[in-house]
Amino acid sequence: MTRGFLSDNSSGAHPAVLAALAAANEGHAPSYGADPVTAALEERVRQHFGPHARVFPVFNGTGANVLALKALLRPWEAAVATAESHMVTDESTAPQLVGGMRLVTVPAAAGKATPALLAPAFDADDGTVHHARPAAVTVAQSTELGTTYTVAELAELTAFARARGARVHVDGARLANAAARLGTTLRELTADAGVDVVSLGATKNGGLPGDAVIVLAPDLAEPVDRLRKATTQLASKMRFVSAQLLALLTEDLWRRNAAHANAAADLLAARLGELGVEPVYPVEANAVFVPVPPAALPAVVAEAPVLAWDARAGVVRAVASFDTTEEDVEALVAVLARHLG
Amino acid sequence: MTRGFLSDNSSGAHPAVLAALAAANEGHAPSYGADPVTAALEERVRQHFGPHARVFPVFNGTGANVLALKALLRPWEAAVATAESHMVTDESTAPQLVGGMRLVTVPAAAGKATPALLAPAFDADDGTVHHARPAAVTVAQSTELGTTYTVAELAELTAFARARGARVHVDGARLANAAARLGTTLRELTADAGVDVVSLGATKNGGLPGDAVIVLAPDLAEPVDRLRKATTQLASKMRFVSAQLLALLTEDLWRRNAAHANAAADLLAARLGELGVEPVYPVEANAVFVPVPPAALPAVVAEAPVLAWDARAGVVRAVASFDTTEEDVEALVAVLARHLG
Amino acid sequence: MTRGFLSDNSSGAHPAVLAALAAANEGHAPSYGADPVTAALEERVRQHFGPHARVFPVFNGTGANVLALKALLRPWEAAVATAESHMVTDESTAPQLVGGMRLVTVPAAAGKATPALLAPAFDADDGTVHHARPAAVTVAQSTELGTTYTVAELAELTAFARARGARVHVDGARLANAAARLGTTLRELTADAGVDVVSLGATKNGGLPGDAVIVLAPDLAEPVDRLRKATTQLASKMRFVSAQLLALLTEDLWRRNAAHANAAADLLAARLGELGVEPVYPVEANAVFVPVPPAALPAVVAEAPVLAWDARAGVVRAVASFDTTEEDVEALVAVLARHLG
Amino acid sequence: MTRGFLSDNSSGAHPAVLAALAAANEGHAPSYGADPVTAALEERVRQHFGPHARVFPVFNGTGANVLALKALLRPWEAAVATAESHMVTDESTAPQLVGGMRLVTVPAAAGKATPALLAPAFDADDGTVHHARPAAVTVAQSTELGTTYTVAELAELTAFARARGARVHVDGARLANAAARLGTTLRELTADAGVDVVSLGATKNGGLPGDAVIVLAPDLAEPVDRLRKATTQLASKMRFVSAQLLALLTEDLWRRNAAHANAAADLLAARLGELGVEPVYPVEANAVFVPVPPAALPAVVAEAPVLAWDARAGVVRAVASFDTTEEDVEALVAVLARHLG
Repeated sequence: MTRGFLSDNSSGAHPAVLAALAAANEGHAPSYGADPVTAALEERVRQHFGPHARVFPVFNGTGANVLALKALLRPWEAAVATAESHMVTDESTAPQLVGGMRLVTVPAAAGKATPALLAPAFDADDGTVHHARPAAVTVAQSTELGTTYTVAELAELTAFARARGARVHVDGARLANAAARLGTTLRELTADAGVDVVSLGATKNGGLPGDAVIVLAPDLAEPVDRLRKATTQLASKMRFVSAQLLALLTEDLWRRNAAHANAAADLLAARLGELGVEPVYPVEANAVFVPVPPAALPAVVAEAPVLAWDARAGVVRAVASFDTTEEDVEALVAVLARHLG
Repeated sequence: MTRGFLSDNSSGAHPAVLAALAAANEGHAPSYGADPVTAALEERVRQHFGPHARVFPVFNGTGANVLALKALLRPWEAAVATAESHMVTDESTAPQLVGGMRLVTVPAAAGKATPALLAPAFDADDGTVHHARPAAVTVAQSTELGTTYTVAELAELTAFARARGARVHVDGARLANAAARLGTTLRELTADAGVDVVSLGATKNGGLPGDAVIVLAPDLAEPVDRLRKATTQLASKMRFVSAQLLALLTEDLWRRNAAHANAAADLLAARLGELGVEPVYPVEANAVFVPVPPAALPAVVAEAPVLAWDARAGVVRAVASFDTTEEDVEALVAVLARHLG
Repeated sequence: MTRGFLSDNSSGAHPAVLAALAAANEGHAPSYGADPVTAALEERVRQHFGPHARVFPVFNGTGANVLALKALLRPWEAAVATAESHMVTDESTAPQLVGGMRLVTVPAAAGKATPALLAPAFDADDGTVHHARPAAVTVAQSTELGTTYTVAELAELTAFARARGARVHVDGARLANAAARLGTTLRELTADAGVDVVSLGATKNGGLPGDAVIVLAPDLAEPVDRLRKATTQLASKMRFVSAQLLALLTEDLWRRNAAHANAAADLLAARLGELGVEPVYPVEANAVFVPVPPAALPAVVAEAPVLAWDARAGVVRAVASFDTTEEDVEALVAVLARHLG
Repeated sequence: MTRGFLSDNSSGAHPAVLAALAAANEGHAPSYGADPVTAALEERVRQHFGPHARVFPVFNGTGANVLALKALLRPWEAAVATAESHMVTDESTAPQLVGGMRLVTVPAAAGKATPALLAPAFDADDGTVHHARPAAVTVAQSTELGTTYTVAELAELTAFARARGARVHVDGARLANAAARLGTTLRELTADAGVDVVSLGATKNGGLPGDAVIVLAPDLAEPVDRLRKATTQLASKMRFVSAQLLALLTEDLWRRNAAHANAAADLLAARLGELGVEPVYPVEANAVFVPVPPAALPAVVAEAPVLAWDARAGVVRAVASFDTTEEDVEALVAVLARHLG
């Protein structure tokens, strides 16, 4: 297939991840996480996320998100999310079917929630049994629109949530990209900012299938552990999921991969800027939303490996990967230039 | 870790599976199954399971089982299973939580259902709304007790189910072991025997995390496709799951791996026989259930890599893998012999 | 308690409904709907809703709504609703918990959906498994904001839905008020307008606890019948629910009760108009949304039997019942006048 | 309809219950339980069940049972029930669909659980995430087979459960019959015996639709309150459900009704004894299970208002109601005598 920008799951795995799989394949090992690779991962996660962090490897982002939120909510409670978030729009009925969860949506500016935007969802709760109590806030970092919460913004969000009796989940399918962009540690973006539980994406960061739930609030460990099985997300040969996560968290491969993808997105944005084209949203991670004439959009997505994001408004999405090259970017610019001209 | 018999998920992946992963890692590929590796798998699955078979790669057996059964049942229907089956006893609340499914249990002889054993579950339905209609039968092949349904037995089961208005799911976590034991093709054990949908295990057959749902009844394709996402079992970088399945289905690696494990179980049973010990259940796949004095059981499981199956009755379980060696078997026999003497 | 306007469930039951209960209490009767009262109801419902209508008495509106929508949706499908609808905001997590259902919301003008407002929810579905397929539209008649869909508007909605492959549910907690206001039969507002399934409210129309699901699309009868039990909405002594519905559908008691409530709302609106106060929404059923100065709202709800609808904007809701008197209205106006002055 | 013994829900409501409904119909009242009738019921329930008891009126037994058990279980936990219990066999998929609950079944002697019968379900839990943790025991009082737990038996059950880390739910659809039979107060059979939560049946005790969940363990009050709404069991005009419960709990109407039904069952058993026929199970409440020749069973159920309980074994069930007369019993005996002779 043509190398592309359809999504950062179009790319494969980083060679170090594959090498880690091969290394993990030595001999037999206890199943379901009692293996030495998972033990090493647990130690590594504490280094990255703080001494109280617990890691629960899972299969994918849908699984991580549903599991993490379900652990936060009692059956009569709801999570508040931005209307455009992946959790709301792109998980089919998984939150409802698997979790029985209600997601209350609020509008967002460039995909980002703020206390002011979230407040009405909490204010609307009159405390009666008729209303699902908003007990969690879930935000994506970076967001579905390629924007990023700063540490200060996150801290403000978690303080707001705590004040309202809610906890905070971060959908970190692209947490690495956010941390790389902001120059922070993973801990600064999560535990230190008051986050309770994180879906840590590895797949889009240079992994194969395999992600994780990172529990930062100790009381969530049992629910996440139990629900991982009950929501079908427990791997028997877990060492092979853990090995990937461990490889990415070793020698900052996660950051290097993410920074590479971010830089490729920056290059794309810069080259578009030279053509007089401004991205639709600030480029704060590895995604660039490019305005195109609606009439030209079908031709653009036919010729360029980008996603038709909004056919009516005329927006395509280009997401860079850990292995995106300058040539990839230039080839994309060449196609876009013909249609944007 | 000491090589062992705790489960066939203690072993790692076959080198050919790892090699296939590496090969699948070339360049970029469309996500969610639109990649060439998955296309090749689809073709290969038709060769193995018949021209109408559809393959839906998933992450694990829990996911495959819940997804497959959910596709068979309307919300007011139930599946009939044997009381000792993995689906009933070892999936936490996944069938209920994810699927809202009711499992009606019947006793079984050596883990195997028969029309006579299943009939009461159907007879108990008076057709009123008070009773969940039994609309599916789910059997494991091989069973949780290491026994195997013959083609004739399966055909009898599916004919019975069809006559009762029910469809049949096979939990094939160890389907390869059964087919290798019986000397049949996969198709003979499934499509040709009247089975509607199969959970195809790859993990225990020499794979990493990654299994599949095989749809044989065409009307189940849409539900399985849609529910795969809604039950959190859809991989974005699917080529890496498909590559494993494809490798196992290439040059009969699946059969060779399974036959190897079966032979190791046979060797273990034979060596135990020399010690005057009869397995608790017929050894018809790759598992041997060994009777031990209850008082000795704690010592046995402390010294030997076997599972305490029934502490009261005094039974341990030894499961052979695709890479179990004669030395592994002899080492186990040596430990067991000390306690069985 | 002071007679009031907090809701039309503050009122009791119409004497004819109580009398019907007493009459239904003669002797023994088969349970679960096989009784003569339910049979009479079935015949009566066909007269009111058309020859293909099927009635399934249930306990309450939450139950009717969840059951009816669940019958319309496969597990990977969603229903589209207006953001302010009762189904979305006031059913706690019932749609998600009981039904595993996803509700996709669209904004509405005065609580009413239109094809133009609904279209984006359908356009957003790209047909992939990532998106829950919008397979149903649910609208309230009259709406949560006291407005009413005309027959033409409903027909337009159902034509739109059908063209998009979706079916239509009407939450008719106050269907009687709408029909009374519009001067239509129940059939004209439902079956003839292309509606597939209706939650028929009796409680707010002069009943005790007891409502019904009216199935107009024949293929929904089995799902509704089965799901009524599985969602806990099946009454054993059903004759007592059926008797209420039958009483309301006899000699147009439903219409007389509704018209009375509507007229009381009109009187209230007229008296407010004399004070120079315009209701926030058109008064098209039995509810009047009264603007009050936000600072005065706490005093208003303390003194008058009305609901604080929107404390920030300054809106209280007054809902008239089948037994609201002119004195009730005048007493309310007197209190309001002090604060609106 | 011929008066009968098909079930105790064939009978209507006691006149005092209807009178209470009429009395409760005075004027307006706050909805959802904030009314004076419900307040009076709450006080009355404390008198009957102890000072810490909380009552949550619901619509029916299915709803009460699912709600009560759901309040006891986290999503990865299971309830242990006897295989023949109503909860297991006669609630369609409600526990699974609404509650996502797993019910683990154990065999029972005459429908009654004992610590010895329950123990294996707890022993089977190895504490791993693969097994749903048994966190509740649910027993019916009286049982589906018309037998009754003594106070001592109940205390033994709850002590056993507590020792195993589980809590106890009593399905009291016929709690009144048990208490009347045993000569105990309701409190002695529940709170004082260590029970955590009760489904209190009113319908079969002379009520219309309307039952209740009685919370005895204070921490269950919030879950039951919230889940009542989320499981569709919250009545808006709750006073009409509360009034029924209050009437039954006034001047021991509950006990008089139950004792009357029990006495009718005793008379039936005695008369059968004169014919040389022994009931299949001890008659300890208001149900008599009568052995009939299997060949005669179709004729028996065609001629007599009894339920075909077990067509193969030849058992019919006769349940007496609060209004069963001696003439009813004699008429039934006359029919049975012809077939048993």
